[in-house]
Amino acid sequence: MDVRKFSIPEILFGQGSLQYAALCAYRMGGERVFLVSDTGLEKAGWVDRVFSILRKEGLTWTYFNEINSNPRDYQVSEGAKRYLVEGCDVVMAIGGGSPMDAAKGIATVASNGGEVNDYEGANRIERPLPPMVFMPSTAGSGADISQFAIITDTRRKVKMSIISRTLVPNISITDPLLLTTKPTELVISSAIDALSHAIEAYVSTIASTLTEIQSLKAIDLILNYLPIAIQDRSMDSMEKLSSAGTFAGMAFSNASLGLDHALAHSLGGKLDVAHGLIHPVLLPSVMRFNLPSCVEKMANIGEIIIGRRRSGAEATAQEGIERLEAFFADFNISTRLRDIVSDCDVLPKICEMALHDTCLVTNPREADVDAMLDICKACW
Amino acid sequence: MDVRKFSIPEILFGQGSLQYAALCAYRMGGERVFLVSDTGLEKAGWVDRVFSILRKEGLTWTYFNEINSNPRDYQVSEGAKRYLVEGCDVVMAIGGGSPMDAAKGIATVASNGGEVNDYEGANRIERPLPPMVFMPSTAGSGADISQFAIITDTRRKVKMSIISRTLVPNISITDPLLLTTKPTELVISSAIDALSHAIEAYVSTIASTLTEIQSLKAIDLILNYLPIAIQDRSMDSMEKLSSAGTFAGMAFSNASLGLDHALAHSLGGKLDVAHGLIHPVLLPSVMRFNLPSCVEKMANIGEIIIGRRRSGAEATAQEGIERLEAFFADFNISTRLRDIVSDCDVLPKICEMALHDTCLVTNPREADVDAMLDICKACW
Repeated sequence: MDVRKFSIPEILFGQGSLQYAALCAYRMGGERVFLVSDTGLEKAGWVDRVFSILRKEGLTWTYFNEINSNPRDYQVSEGAKRYLVEGCDVVMAIGGGSPMDAAKGIATVASNGGEVNDYEGANRIERPLPPMVFMPSTAGSGADISQFAIITDTRRKVKMSIISRTLVPNISITDPLLLTTKPTELVISSAIDALSHAIEAYVSTIASTLTEIQSLKAIDLILNYLPIAIQDRSMDSMEKLSSAGTFAGMAFSNASLGLDHALAHSLGGKLDVAHGLIHPVLLPSVMRFNLPSCVEKMANIGEIIIGRRRSGAEATAQEGIERLEAFFADFNISTRLRDIVSDCDVLPKICEMALHDTCLVTNPREADVDAMLDICKACW
Repeated sequence: MDVRKFSIPEILFGQGSLQYAALCAYRMGGERVFLVSDTGLEKAGWVDRVFSILRKEGLTWTYFNEINSNPRDYQVSEGAKRYLVEGCDVVMAIGGGSPMDAAKGIATVASNGGEVNDYEGANRIERPLPPMVFMPSTAGSGADISQFAIITDTRRKVKMSIISRTLVPNISITDPLLLTTKPTELVISSAIDALSHAIEAYVSTIASTLTEIQSLKAIDLILNYLPIAIQDRSMDSMEKLSSAGTFAGMAFSNASLGLDHALAHSLGGKLDVAHGLIHPVLLPSVMRFNLPSCVEKMANIGEIIIGRRRSGAEATAQEGIERLEAFFADFNISTRLRDIVSDCDVLPKICEMALHDTCLVTNPREADVDAMLDICKACW
């Protein structure tokens, strides 16, 4: 095996862990917090809860919520300007992937200058970032664990992958209580996002023993507990989904992703499609395409999905993919590309953009534009 | 579940990773390295190899090897004095648990003053430590991953457990090549040490989903690959044992240990017994004692050992413990306490000391001195 790195934040995990948010910021040397979130979290009362936790420890803050899902480059610039003007010294985010990725972009630009677009690709950030303490609310994006930030370049209409070890937050505070106020659709799409992270990281060309067990555990937890979670919405099942998100984050942050995410980023950048809704559409077809390059690993995934091994790795893998399609279909979500992309004429452009996405580098099977178009047609 | 923390260093893993040692020290701001190791590593050529890696990157160093196995408090004092006199700014260690634990003690005293004995117990270290970059050579101690340092108080003849998040090194560089120069007995005792970490962490009262999967993977890898490794001494099996050591380190650093380690520390402190040789003697009896408090978990361990589940959790657990005893016996090592302790009159004192060991706090079943004496008698 080649040399592999494995880097994750310090993790506080469990019901009630949010109460330590201010102490964590303080321990990182923070006195004035730059807090990023969105209106969804405000309405659910979580932003006020963080304010009161910060107030109790004598910390002051600047609050920033001017972001969309698929956060934009100009929103990051605006945030970085505010961070500097207000003299903040620690970045916090509470929410899903969008506030957390925006917060990473803001931390980058505030400390390294320029625009967030300057840092697209791997290892382009040179100077240290302010400390980051993140509180994920969706158990899906893994942005609280990962060295990735995904920001939309609005001029090019491209979702940029910014990848750097320095984007790993210092502390992830994962409180499963935050999941309890999420609408069911968001619980589903987040868990499926985490599942796609785990599957793509598992078959990545730079996967290692250190990442593989985290991937397999995440897959196992999501397949078993997502159906239960949307029925019972119990703390136990929310906790299981939260830990799945954390394991998937550990895996993909260190083993990267693949073709499904390269295409998902293109679709998100070009058409502003919600990220979590793309995987049920693309992932099974991408897995079929990748199968010849990683039969044994796909069989291991299949074994978890089916609950047993068929005779022969390929049969196990194939049945696994079929069962995964059925699993998605059971949630009553779009599973065909035509449901989320109105015009198939845009697909050649989408595939061309995906060719330049950093996630494609670690896909187990090489893919050119034609191969990607075939995948899009297969799931059209 | 209560709130749990999970904190590990950045890990570089794989054959040849040692070459990045100087870059890692430099990245941590180091210019003058304090390198701790021992004569075993010197003879195998690894210390010279580190010198040449440091030289190539223009780093200077102070070399310190004045330590024993079961490193002593006065050796830590001497090292800390040298660190300060020579103006070092980063601590590195290459070796097994002894050089690494000594290096942690030196980093603590050099930055926090006093004597290492002042920091015995949990969370007693207040000021930040110099950066630490550790290169484990035994795949057993987990000191490159953990927040533990075990140092002998020579006046009291006690192995002190010093536990603090700040003792987690910044970077662990795990190069399985280092295992290839180890004598077979050391490969065995190190792997069994890691196995005991994994088992005790798995049944610990503060285990969590985040630590449990690392424990189970470590147990699985050691049971499968230790017998192969001592036969073929191949890179593949050394790599498997190295990753097992890392997983076990992740688990016990965050879930702590139990009764087996409390007794092992007492025996090591009082009689200077080699740590790795104690577990084959104590662990099965400790597992039998703990069984009523964690039948399901012991059955999960049993299932890995046996390779299948018997009807009933207790039967699976019991057979697992029997098979573990047979596993140890196959390596032709001492499995009775009388082989490593010459006089049974010392046992009451050993058990009394173990009562004050921090590891006992997380044991799944409460144990007083009488219970510990019974365990010692059971394995006499």
